[in-house]
Formats: sequence, structure tokens, C-alpha cells
Amino acid sequence: MSFHVYDTTLRDGAQQEGMNLSLADKLAIAGLLDELGVGFIEGGWPGAIPKDTEFFKRAGSELQLKNAVLAAFGSTRKAHKATASDPQVKALLDAETPVVTLVAKSDIRHVERALKTTGEENLAMISDTIELLVKEGRRVVLDAEHFFDGYRFNREYTTSCVKAAADAGAEVVVLCDTNGGMVPSFIREIVAEIGQQVDVQLGIHCHNDTGCAVANSLAAVEAGAMHVQGTINGYGERTGNADLTTVVANLEIKYGNHVLPNSNLEDLTNIAHSIAEITNIAPFARQPYVGQSAFTHKAGLHASAIRVDPDLYQHIDPASVGNDMRMLVSEMAGRASIELKGKELGIDLTGEGDVIGRVADKVKDLEAKGYTFDAADASFELLLRSELEDEPISFYDVESWRTISETTGTGEGETKSEATVKLSAGGKRYVATGEGNGPVNALDAAMRLALLPVYPELKAIKLVDYKVRILDSSSGTDAITRVTIESSDGRRSWRTVGVGENVIEASWEALGGAIAYGLFKMGIARR
Amino acid sequence: MSFHVYDTTLRDGAQQEGMNLSLADKLAIAGLLDELGVGFIEGGWPGAIPKDTEFFKRAGSELQLKNAVLAAFGSTRKAHKATASDPQVKALLDAETPVVTLVAKSDIRHVERALKTTGEENLAMISDTIELLVKEGRRVVLDAEHFFDGYRFNREYTTSCVKAAADAGAEVVVLCDTNGGMVPSFIREIVAEIGQQVDVQLGIHCHNDTGCAVANSLAAVEAGAMHVQGTINGYGERTGNADLTTVVANLEIKYGNHVLPNSNLEDLTNIAHSIAEITNIAPFARQPYVGQSAFTHKAGLHASAIRVDPDLYQHIDPASVGNDMRMLVSEMAGRASIELKGKELGIDLTGEGDVIGRVADKVKDLEAKGYTFDAADASFELLLRSELEDEPISFYDVESWRTISETTGTGEGETKSEATVKLSAGGKRYVATGEGNGPVNALDAAMRLALLPVYPELKAIKLVDYKVRILDSSSGTDAITRVTIESSDGRRSWRTVGVGENVIEASWEALGGAIAYGLFKMGIARR
Repeated sequence: MSFHVYDTTLRDGAQQEGMNLSLADKLAIAGLLDELGVGFIEGGWPGAIPKDTEFFKRAGSELQLKNAVLAAFGSTRKAHKATASDPQVKALLDAETPVVTLVAKSDIRHVERALKTTGEENLAMISDTIELLVKEGRRVVLDAEHFFDGYRFNREYTTSCVKAAADAGAEVVVLCDTNGGMVPSFIREIVAEIGQQVDVQLGIHCHNDTGCAVANSLAAVEAGAMHVQGTINGYGERTGNADLTTVVANLEIKYGNHVLPNSNLEDLTNIAHSIAEITNIAPFARQPYVGQSAFTHKAGLHASAIRVDPDLYQHIDPASVGNDMRMLVSEMAGRASIELKGKELGIDLTGEGDVIGRVADKVKDLEAKGYTFDAADASFELLLRSELEDEPISFYDVESWRTISETTGTGEGETKSEATVKLSAGGKRYVATGEGNGPVNALDAAMRLALLPVYPELKAIKLVDYKVRILDSSSGTDAITRVTIESSDGRRSWRTVGVGENVIEASWEALGGAIAYGLFKMGIARR
Repeated sequence: MSFHVYDTTLRDGAQQEGMNLSLADKLAIAGLLDELGVGFIEGGWPGAIPKDTEFFKRAGSELQLKNAVLAAFGSTRKAHKATASDPQVKALLDAETPVVTLVAKSDIRHVERALKTTGEENLAMISDTIELLVKEGRRVVLDAEHFFDGYRFNREYTTSCVKAAADAGAEVVVLCDTNGGMVPSFIREIVAEIGQQVDVQLGIHCHNDTGCAVANSLAAVEAGAMHVQGTINGYGERTGNADLTTVVANLEIKYGNHVLPNSNLEDLTNIAHSIAEITNIAPFARQPYVGQSAFTHKAGLHASAIRVDPDLYQHIDPASVGNDMRMLVSEMAGRASIELKGKELGIDLTGEGDVIGRVADKVKDLEAKGYTFDAADASFELLLRSELEDEPISFYDVESWRTISETTGTGEGETKSEATVKLSAGGKRYVATGEGNGPVNALDAAMRLALLPVYPELKAIKLVDYKVRILDSSSGTDAITRVTIESSDGRRSWRTVGVGENVIEASWEALGGAIAYGLFKMGIARR
């Protein structure tokens, strides 16, 4: 009996508020899941969701899976209907996946009140559907919905559902905490009890409504479950599903169970972030193992100790999950943090006590104004290098700039933006006007027009993301705006920050930093 | 021995990346914590952080605490120094709090490698400091740092630290998983073991590096801990601390332990969100119990069943923690969801099959373009009501608009924005130019100037928050922008959405929706 890592990002994860996956998104995510090494990819619900029917059609030919097998998800036959002609069952067969995951009610209250049928008929629906699918050569996983609530209400009936599935030939029966209300001690006890009564591989499917989805999954595994379902980044309805990235890292690192082939754990952070890029849901910085802050230290208190002995302050080596230790520059941290941050950036600050002191003071001032360097390493590096070299890193002198956005008609998409910049570089004055589909894009375009004659290397640099945060929104129109811009030269990306009462001014500052950092890192001198 | 709910949001929570609390913020948060009913509020580290020294000075006179007592946090005396004259110990006494929480090393590796002293001297530092503080009339809590790592490495030494604290008169010894690497079964076993060896109230302090901080805290309580530390919303360094909102809700609801006085649990959501407003860290929508999505349903499958029997699909009644059930309108949901959403908005759609069908189609179209109504109920309601009344809800006709942002000097804060709108309302044409500290503020100002003569009620409506999201940023300058605006009339707030290639156009759309919704909800007819 091998251990199953079963991913349902594409089905249950897609229920998350704000998530809307295209077919191309689903195929791309499936490829990444396979790369991570999960054993099963639940692709969707064929027959119920047209996009999912299409997914299975295309997945067969387009995905070359190395590690995973595909599972199609669907419900058992309808009550009092023939199994063979049930359109839902037919859609599951048509998906032509090696595995079919059936969802069935196992709580008698749901059988009677939601399904509106008898307990007996529900058992027949489970048995008949599994038998037919097994006869058709499918490996069948049964998701016993509302299992734990059902078991606590009426353990006999709920157990009989698991037995019916096992007897009909299900390979795994997955115990689902569908409403997510369990805590680990409840799960452990029930999984151990049911394990003694049935002879089938048990699985676990948890939701995070008590903040215990990961721990509940671990408790089930400790009690004998050999199949864990979850979603990457914990996506899912309400509070989400068990975060499979955390569950897998815990099983591998804390329990020493090798559940991923070829120790792909070093790809964990990268894959979790790549999937977040596709789902377009901002990653949660505090996410265990893979979060941007997961190995980030701020405390001035510890900074000097961490420098000497990082193992004392981290539960694992971040590299083992493909993440990095980061030191934050913050008013709470002292000179030691700045020195350490310099080291992280490859700048040796030994003997530069004055510079460290000046940088610490500047950071403190700027943070009081609303800047944050936590998420803008490039802006911090510019500040640090400017202090080190005793003059700002700058490639041009600005005279003025202006942006105009206006309607050119009444329809959708008829707003145009333009920007004019006047600046000097390479000994000449340039006046350039750029257009864009927004004022910042227009400013970016105008800057390029003005600077490209002097710095043709700018061509390689692109603005890839733009974020706006209103600080202290309670003060209404006097609110301060913080803009973060992510730029890339195709090989690396960097983030710069701008702050101001005017969002365009803050954007302009972040844009200027982005250009300066990009040119500086290419080793270009001011012309 | 009474159970302690001990909050460290103001000290350990403040270590979170991106958090920067002012003294006023700290006082406001302390008031909210007391309202929730926590027993202990750790206010900060007097002597080490000037803001925290000041906090304790002002807290004594400005906070009228009903439920909580204040704790000052600090370390034991320095190695090989006299306790009475230690400046750190003096700062703790000067804070004049009933409780002092001392942090001490309990892992021999940290004693030797970070503290650079002997195990014996460390024990003396613990004993001496506690004895002095107790003599001065303080209740002492000892935070045994790196306790679990220490115990797994050298249980004798780690246990001796706990014993030294107990013998010296500490009221509670808190077992800290400082690096956050534990899982619940490790915690349970160690807490049970140590409980048999010492005679002192035990506490637990967890970090979320394995995604188990809440479950680890519960495991410790199951094993006998009677004091739980955590932070509101799980704020903290790296992956954060145990989320006290979740821990408390679990203890109260899942275990039936009454750990909050006067069942203040109904205030949980409100207080968690109020604190998030102060910290200015966007709340995590999937946060258990209090998150915006915590009781949100999307699945079309379940929508009809939820309508009949909400108890079947929720682990608790959301009202018990001050949260609400929400139905999302999404392409995955069908007509049943739209009907249910209508009901939530107080609109009876019985017999309006055609309207429901048209709205479902429109939502699908708009979502494909990048709109999302998950977070913009007001835009959805406008859409629904426009379909019901067979004409758009509109209060004016726009002819054109324009915004200009430009530098008026080279210094900071010298960017000015202005906007001109031309529109007709109340039978007249208005041309108005507004200024603002950004193009959207300027547009808002111009709209007010133009509309106030006809709709003086607009005065009550304010823009309170503004968010920008770049969709599909991989497509560079062709990216679609989604803007969400939150508005308020002082009594209620609402959110509207706009989408477009141009951020100003998307903002204009969201702004128009915000005004239309506000006027509509005031019962105003088009003039």
C-alpha cells in the first residue's frame, strides 16, 4: 500500500473566492503539479462544468505526466435511476482517466434532507456506481462527504457507507471534513476507530475552518490514513482546503516520510509561486515553508545572533524547500540588520560604521513617512549604494513631467493617456511624449522615448507588476499612497517603492528607481 | 487555577513584516483587546524600544481596562551582573505593570552559543531576576524560549530551567516553540511529560512555521497547559504567531471552555477587523472564523441546498463569532446563487426567472472580461436592479472627462492633479474642474462640484478605500486593470468595481458606480 499525495487544486481549490481558472490555466497548473511529484491530479468535474469536460479531452493528448495520474471527479448515480445510463456516470467514463473520484453522502442528515432519499438507496447508489466503474477498469476513490459530522451524529450509518464503498471495490475511501469543523484530536480518534472496522485504504480531506486543516491531515495520517488530499497554497471555498505544500513539507521533513518522488521538495517554493501567478491570487506572505516571509527576520535583537548561527533561529534550512532567509530593514532592527542585509546583497560593510549609521537613520525617517523596504529590496540597495558612494545613483536630470488621461468618446476603452517628460541625459535635453493605456504606462513610455537614445540598454527592462496601497485611509483625501513596481530584465526582477500624497507622483518615484536600479545592475555608468 | 488568554500582538505580533505601529495605534489596539476580553495584554519591551517605554507610561493613565491586566516584556538580568542594578530589570519595574513577562533561554545551545554563558549562570539569571521581581510585588510569567527544540536536544537542562523558574516564584512558565518547527503530537507528548515533573502553571507560545500554531496550542491545552499566548490575526515574524482569534474560538466553541468573560465571542470578527484597520495589514480573506470568506459559498452545486438548510453546510452559526454567511455570484454558480444573493440583498426574485437568467448571463460575460463581484456587492446590486427595473440606475449623463497630473516644481509633494468633467443632470449641463492629490481624487472632486447643485445628498458620501489590481500582468502593457472602490456614507460602506485597460477609466467606472449606489440607497430618484 503506497502513500497517496492527491491534489484537488483544479477542482476543490477552484471554489475559492476570486479564483477563475481558464482551460489554459488548468493545463499549466497540472503540469506544475506533476513536476512537484504529486501522485494524483483531480482535474475537475466532467459533465457538470463544460471547461472541465474539455480539460480531460485535452489533458490526454497535451500533458505528458511523469509522476501523476489524472482523476475525474463526479457524483454517484441519481437516486432510483439506472447506473449505466446515468449521464453523470457516463461523463466520468468519457473523461477516460485511470482514476475516478466519486463523491457520496455519508451523513444520514444530508442523505435525507439534501439528497431527499433513504439511507438504503444512498448505499445502493454508492455500491452500484463503484461496481460499474470498477468493471469498466477504473480505479475508484470514494470521497465520503461530511464524514466526520456524520460519524459524530450516527456512526453506524456513516460506517455503513464506508463499508459499502470498500465492498464494491473502491481502492480508497476518503474521510472528508467537508464543513471543516474538526480539530486534530477528534480526527485522530475517529480515523483510528473506523480503521479497525473496515478493510480499505483510508484517505483524508480537510478544510481549514478551525485553522487546523494541516494538523487534521497529519492527525489522520498518524491514525493510519495513507492518502492525503489538499490544494496548493490552501486554495478552496471559505477558509480553504488543507494546504498541500505545508502537508507535504511536514510529512517529508517532520515525519521523514518520503511522499514525493526524487525529493522534489526543493521545487516547492517555486512551484507554489508559479501556481499563484497562474491563479492570479496574491500569495500569502506568512504561508508556511514557501511564503515570502516564512524565513524572514526582523528583530534587531536577534539579527546579530542570526548572523553568527542561522541554524539556531530557523526550524529548517530554507533551501530544503527552495526558499531563502531574508533580513528586513526596519526601524525595529538596528545596525546589525543593515550590515546583514548588505551581506545578503553582496555588499561588504565591514568598517563602514558611518555609512551604516546614516543608512539606519534614513530608513527610520523614510519608514515614518510611509515607505517600506520590506518589499522593495531594490530601493534599499539604491539608498545603501548612494550612501556608500556618497552621491545618488542617477542617470538623468528631470525638469518636469505631466500626464493627461481623457475620454475620446463615450464607449468602453476610449480613454487615452499621454505623458510628457522633459529631462537631460548624455549632455542633451530631451522632450518626449508617450502614450499608454494608463498614466503610469504613458510615463513609462515617455521615459523610454527620452532615454533610449542615451541608454539603449533600457529596452531590456520591462515593468511587470504595479501595486498601489492607500496608507491610513481614515484620513480621507490626505491619505498617503504607496506604490510598488516590479520590473524585470528577463533574467531577474526587482521591486522599487514610491510614496506620496499623489499616486502619480509615488508611481513616478518608483518608476525612476526601477530604471536606475536596472541600469546600475547592468553595470552602466551615467552618460 | 484560572485559564489565561494572553495576547502578545503589541510585542511579538509587531515583529511582522510590514507592520509599524505608532504609540496611538498600540493604545487603540490595547483598548480593543480588552473589549474582546483577553486576560493579559503584553504591551511591549520597555527599555529596549522607546515607543514601548512610552506606551506603559501612557497606558496607566489612558487605558481603563475592564478585563485585562498589562504585562511588560523583557529579558532576565545580564550574565555575571547584579540583578538589582540591571538597567533592563529596572525598566521592567519602571513600567509599573502588575505582570512582568521575562524571556529566558532554555535550550543549552542558545545559552552557550548565543548568550555565550554557562548553563549554571543562565539558571542563576532566571532565579535571581524572578526573585527580585516577585519581591517587588510583580506577578511573573517566564517565557522559556526555544523550549521544545531544547527539550528534544537535552531534556535535563531544559527541564531544569522550568524548575528554576517555578522555584523562584514564577506564576506561569510558558513553553515556547520559538522557531515554530513543532507539530501537535510532539507538543502534546512534551507538555504532558514536563507537566509531571514540575509544579507550576504551564503556558504555550507557538509560531506557525509548520502551519500548526493553532493546533499546537490546542494540543498543549489538551495536555494540561492553562495559559495560551497568541496574536490577533496571527501577526508575527516569519509565518506569524498562533492566531488568538482562532484559538479562542476553538476553545470556546469546539471544546466548550469559557475562556472569554461575558461571551464576547460575538465581537470577534469586528475586533479582528478593527485591529487590521489599525495595523493597516490587509486581512486574510480565508482566515478561520473571522475572515471575509470564512462563511462564503460559491459552489452552484450547493447553493440550492444551502438555501433550504444552511446548518448542513456550516460548521457553526457565523453569527456566533459576529461573521455572516455570504453567497458569491460567479460563473460556477447558477441561477440558484443569484436568487439567494438577491435574498441576501433583500430583493425577492420569486417568479423573476427571466431576470435571473439575464443577470446570470451578464455576470458570466463580465467575469470573462475581468470583473469580479465577489468583492463588489454594490456593483452586483446595481446590475441586478437595473435588470429588474429594465433601465440602468443612473443619475446623470456624461459628455466627457479629463485628468491632468503634472509637476509644478522639482521637490517632493509638488505634483498636482486636476480633473474636468462635463455632464448633464437635473436638466442642466455642468462643466466642473476639481483638484486632488491624485487623478482619482481630482475626478471625485470634479464630480462632486458638478453634481452637488442637483444632488446635495452627495455630501455625505466619501471614498474611503481604493484598490488596484493588474490582471494578467504577463501581457505587459496590454494588461487589464481592476479597480475596487470602497465608499461610505458614515453609516454603511459599499464596494464597486471597474475594469479596463486604462486604470483611470476603470477608476472612473468604479467611482460612477459608487455614486449611483450611494444615491440609490438613500432613496433618491433621478432629478
